Amino acid sequence: MTPFSHSIGTNPGQEMHDFMRELFPITRSLTGPGTRQTLDVLGQHLLGLQRHRIDSGTKVYDWTVPPEWIVRSARLTGPDGEVVVDMADHNLHVVGYSEPVDAELTLEELQAHLYSLPDQPDAIPYITSYYNRRWGFCLPDAQRKMLKPGIYRAVIDAELNPDGQLDYADLVIKGESEDEVFLSTYVCHPSMANNEGAGPAVATWLANWVSRAPRHYTYRFVFIPETIGSLAYISRNLDHLRARVKAGFNLSCVGDERVYSFMPSRQGNSLSDRAARHVLRHHAPDYITYSFLERGSDERQYCAPGVDLPVTSVMRSKYGEYPEYHTSLDDLELVTPAGLQGTFDAMVACLRVIETNATWKTTVIGEPQLGKRGLYPTVSVPNGARKVRNLMHVLAYSDGTRDLIDLAEVMGVSALEVAQLVDQLAAHDLLVRVAAPGET
Amino acid sequence: MTPFSHSIGTNPGQEMHDFMRELFPITRSLTGPGTRQTLDVLGQHLLGLQRHRIDSGTKVYDWTVPPEWIVRSARLTGPDGEVVVDMADHNLHVVGYSEPVDAELTLEELQAHLYSLPDQPDAIPYITSYYNRRWGFCLPDAQRKMLKPGIYRAVIDAELNPDGQLDYADLVIKGESEDEVFLSTYVCHPSMANNEGAGPAVATWLANWVSRAPRHYTYRFVFIPETIGSLAYISRNLDHLRARVKAGFNLSCVGDERVYSFMPSRQGNSLSDRAARHVLRHHAPDYITYSFLERGSDERQYCAPGVDLPVTSVMRSKYGEYPEYHTSLDDLELVTPAGLQGTFDAMVACLRVIETNATWKTTVIGEPQLGKRGLYPTVSVPNGARKVRNLMHVLAYSDGTRDLIDLAEVMGVSALEVAQLVDQLAAHDLLVRVAAPGET
Amino acid sequence: MTPFSHSIGTNPGQEMHDFMRELFPITRSLTGPGTRQTLDVLGQHLLGLQRHRIDSGTKVYDWTVPPEWIVRSARLTGPDGEVVVDMADHNLHVVGYSEPVDAELTLEELQAHLYSLPDQPDAIPYITSYYNRRWGFCLPDAQRKMLKPGIYRAVIDAELNPDGQLDYADLVIKGESEDEVFLSTYVCHPSMANNEGAGPAVATWLANWVSRAPRHYTYRFVFIPETIGSLAYISRNLDHLRARVKAGFNLSCVGDERVYSFMPSRQGNSLSDRAARHVLRHHAPDYITYSFLERGSDERQYCAPGVDLPVTSVMRSKYGEYPEYHTSLDDLELVTPAGLQGTFDAMVACLRVIETNATWKTTVIGEPQLGKRGLYPTVSVPNGARKVRNLMHVLAYSDGTRDLIDLAEVMGVSALEVAQLVDQLAAHDLLVRVAAPGET
Repeated sequence: MTPFSHSIGTNPGQEMHDFMRELFPITRSLTGPGTRQTLDVLGQHLLGLQRHRIDSGTKVYDWTVPPEWIVRSARLTGPDGEVVVDMADHNLHVVGYSEPVDAELTLEELQAHLYSLPDQPDAIPYITSYYNRRWGFCLPDAQRKMLKPGIYRAVIDAELNPDGQLDYADLVIKGESEDEVFLSTYVCHPSMANNEGAGPAVATWLANWVSRAPRHYTYRFVFIPETIGSLAYISRNLDHLRARVKAGFNLSCVGDERVYSFMPSRQGNSLSDRAARHVLRHHAPDYITYSFLERGSDERQYCAPGVDLPVTSVMRSKYGEYPEYHTSLDDLELVTPAGLQGTFDAMVACLRVIETNATWKTTVIGEPQLGKRGLYPTVSVPNGARKVRNLMHVLAYSDGTRDLIDLAEVMGVSALEVAQLVDQLAAHDLLVRVAAPGET
Repeated sequence: MTPFSHSIGTNPGQEMHDFMRELFPITRSLTGPGTRQTLDVLGQHLLGLQRHRIDSGTKVYDWTVPPEWIVRSARLTGPDGEVVVDMADHNLHVVGYSEPVDAELTLEELQAHLYSLPDQPDAIPYITSYYNRRWGFCLPDAQRKMLKPGIYRAVIDAELNPDGQLDYADLVIKGESEDEVFLSTYVCHPSMANNEGAGPAVATWLANWVSRAPRHYTYRFVFIPETIGSLAYISRNLDHLRARVKAGFNLSCVGDERVYSFMPSRQGNSLSDRAARHVLRHHAPDYITYSFLERGSDERQYCAPGVDLPVTSVMRSKYGEYPEYHTSLDDLELVTPAGLQGTFDAMVACLRVIETNATWKTTVIGEPQLGKRGLYPTVSVPNGARKVRNLMHVLAYSDGTRDLIDLAEVMGVSALEVAQLVDQLAAHDLLVRVAAPGET
Repeated sequence: MTPFSHSIGTNPGQEMHDFMRELFPITRSLTGPGTRQTLDVLGQHLLGLQRHRIDSGTKVYDWTVPPEWIVRSARLTGPDGEVVVDMADHNLHVVGYSEPVDAELTLEELQAHLYSLPDQPDAIPYITSYYNRRWGFCLPDAQRKMLKPGIYRAVIDAELNPDGQLDYADLVIKGESEDEVFLSTYVCHPSMANNEGAGPAVATWLANWVSRAPRHYTYRFVFIPETIGSLAYISRNLDHLRARVKAGFNLSCVGDERVYSFMPSRQGNSLSDRAARHVLRHHAPDYITYSFLERGSDERQYCAPGVDLPVTSVMRSKYGEYPEYHTSLDDLELVTPAGLQGTFDAMVACLRVIETNATWKTTVIGEPQLGKRGLYPTVSVPNGARKVRNLMHVLAYSDGTRDLIDLAEVMGVSALEVAQLVDQLAAHDLLVRVAAPGET
């Protein structure tokens, strides 16, 4: 087993992809029945998932929870009675948070309510208008160009309920310590795959992996609508999160196969930053590092001044950086089982590095005699000399000031490999832990 | 108005150049009537300029104030009675601090008293002998080579008055704070332009700009002869300067158009170092940074151990680094209105950055909703998105630990542009100042 | 005299090489009569050398002092009675710590007891088996390939005395301070030159140089068998060494002419690291810096956690990095008088830098007037301007925070040159020492 090969089923990449297929067609938004249905499905896979609600109209720091949006159907019919677009065909056909409408318009009047992408004529764009009231339809620009003059009928059967609610969920998996690893993903994007069916899928599989693994940390998985959801979550848990969260990840854009990329926390050198950089350097040495100036997901809230959580992102193709982003082209062919598996493996490696990270101290003065303990290979084995050398390096550098990630960086090998050496040496009482993970 | 375009008249570059023309012919030295006349002229342009004197013979740290040098005329006459050189034609013809002489010499005897530059045959060199008694004449090497044998008469009508004085002046422009920005230039160089008529000219125009601008800091402009003058000034004001000066600039070689250059303070990372480097990076990205090892002006005294002022220099062609340096070729054609204007603009930008530099803290938790405050552009404007992004960056990074220059460096934009964003956000109560300039 | 040219005889390089010729044939090992004989020879050159012993069977941290190995002869005879190899011809022919044997074997049986290097067919390898009991002979692979079938007789007249001892020696040369410079080399390698007759030779000549030089520090020269000897030395002196040693060097592989190389201490920035890097940068700018990951000599013990001595190595061709390493090819032609002299000079420069290193503070405010003290050249001398400039730099940077090595690094000149400038300025009361060497 290589350090980055773990699985919780026989083929988690395929399993996550199948799960995404189940989530894909649900009509999600910041609020509403689709979001609740999504959380229901997640709950079937996540024992102990806790559901929460916050009323529309509630002040959340500088924001107000919007009305709940309930959309039952959205259809645009053409002059000859033909259906131009129908939300039943693709959720992206309706502008998110459209107000209800039942109107007849000329094509000219209609144009102000249509959204398309001239540069991507076959893509349906993803458009929302959460805080300004409007309605509209999204469609491929090629189709739009073919619309003929005449009277169109726009019907959106929706309501914006000021007495509604915003739904979210979390799952806390207790560890030995009350210190926490925080993982967040969002449940507001309808019918797109890399951004964002992949995040909930990987989060769900990671949570199941964590629940079966021995663990020092307590893990908090958070499923929320973007921005207003993370602000709501922070507002209800700020003191706890600030006191307890030692490492954090925002799971977004984790499904395609093209690249790995990394968004640091604002602080930039937290335990999660160090672990993620270390893992990616070994897992995918050509990964892209973005600057926090290029942020665009919930790290905008989690890392804001006064919140200051160590939330980073290990991603594949980053939001805003791939052509299919926020269009109907971001689909279940762009996201693949192998893409999901790769990010899952990298995240498992990050969590294992975080779990095993600790500061160690050599118990002997001078070098110990490894031979008498059977730590020299008794027969010639491939890389035997390398392993002995690395054992000696761990002993030589464990002076109580370096944690496992530091050791690995000095030695130029994977922290997970160093963890195995540390375990062996500790079993022979040649090393003692001087600070548990997160206490360093 | 771009951040680096300011003016106090209609054309300050031209005004400074005209002013230099007035100063140029005065017979300046470390001491004497010419220096007093220079300070008189400066006083006509600088309301509140204070005059000071220190007696010849006064001990100033390791030095002694020299006798006052009064030179009335200096003329060398040739064998046929023709005038070879006359101080009335150019101040540089006489060696500074020449003792009086009225003597007839053969050409051979005369040679020990002549100074010229074989490599620059048309230039009159600038020669002084402040602390060893001698006399001499300076002339173009081409002219020297033509001198014919015979008896020459050397007449220098001068005195070295041990009961004289050294003159200097300063101007203190009060601000809200007693903390000071210190600017020094020198008034001892006769009939040269870049080094040094330009320094007093730019200092004078800056002082007038400062006096009309709202200001946090108190500004101290100092007009002194080089070395002995700065030592005298330090000796009389050391405790005050050490306690109060938060940023400082030595104004020398600020008039030609060729390059920008920068001399750091010895400390290297003071507020003036940071501001000047930031401004030059935006104002003149190809500026030359010299090492403090290459110092050569009054920063030698201001930055000496035990003085430790944060005095830097924003220059054009640096002393010692341009061919006309310390010769009659350093004239009012080498220094131009555009050259003076460029340094003036850069210095104004430095002072504005220093004034606006402060540490700020975001008042909200998470990102604020800019839209409801009209901070999103309501119509599409060029760079609108860039401005919104920069507003968000200012908020995201203002955690109370970064000052304005830090913010600007992180964001990769001019500190003056950041200052405008800060002003806007502060007006909406989204930012508060946590440390005033200089308190950080 | 250039900063790196010192001598204690007329030709120390040649003297050291002659001395090595005396040491070369002695049958050294971790223990035994040959090691005692070696220390006897060293004692003839080192007045005050102290001899120490530690009993076989003594526990030394994680190790046990092995039995004393006494080998009187070792000879392998062939089927026709011809001598195949004989320790009398070369010490390397017998495996170090061979148990006694007197046996007849077929060539096939013998092969398990033979050691040779197929890649270096003319070299006798250096093989030892200190902690596993075996016996064997070493020979050139070319010779081994020619061995004909038949009955061989192997006779090793040796004993492994459990009531024996391990011998080592040290020499403490008192200085003004009780703080120490520590130098260690080893006396266990038989009949090899770069690794390791050169170390004891250079150590001996350095000790004699130190004993005649004025000195601030106390010097401790240690002559030990590798690993078990350094561990024994540490175990008997740990508290003293930790409290007193301010700089340290392991002298190994200091004799060939090919390159200079440097092994840092684990800490990496101790006084010895700084001095050695500085000296090598000036003495041999193309020296190789190894990582502490590539350690392999007694710095493994001296720099171990809990010992933490600042022990570095200034070497020529490093152990393990040259083809003759640990073979009979590492001989007195590989090591040359010039090679020994070069390392000796570099080490003397290191010790002089360490001795003169101190923190200095300028006594005057502002620049002093060097002219009145005769510190300006009175006639034009080559590099006169450079020297004055450097005097001014020493004054400008001596603010009480920088030691001599810092000054030299800032100025880009040799610390020994700076030491001369410091001496001159101190003699004129322009500088005072604010911290003695090692107190900084």
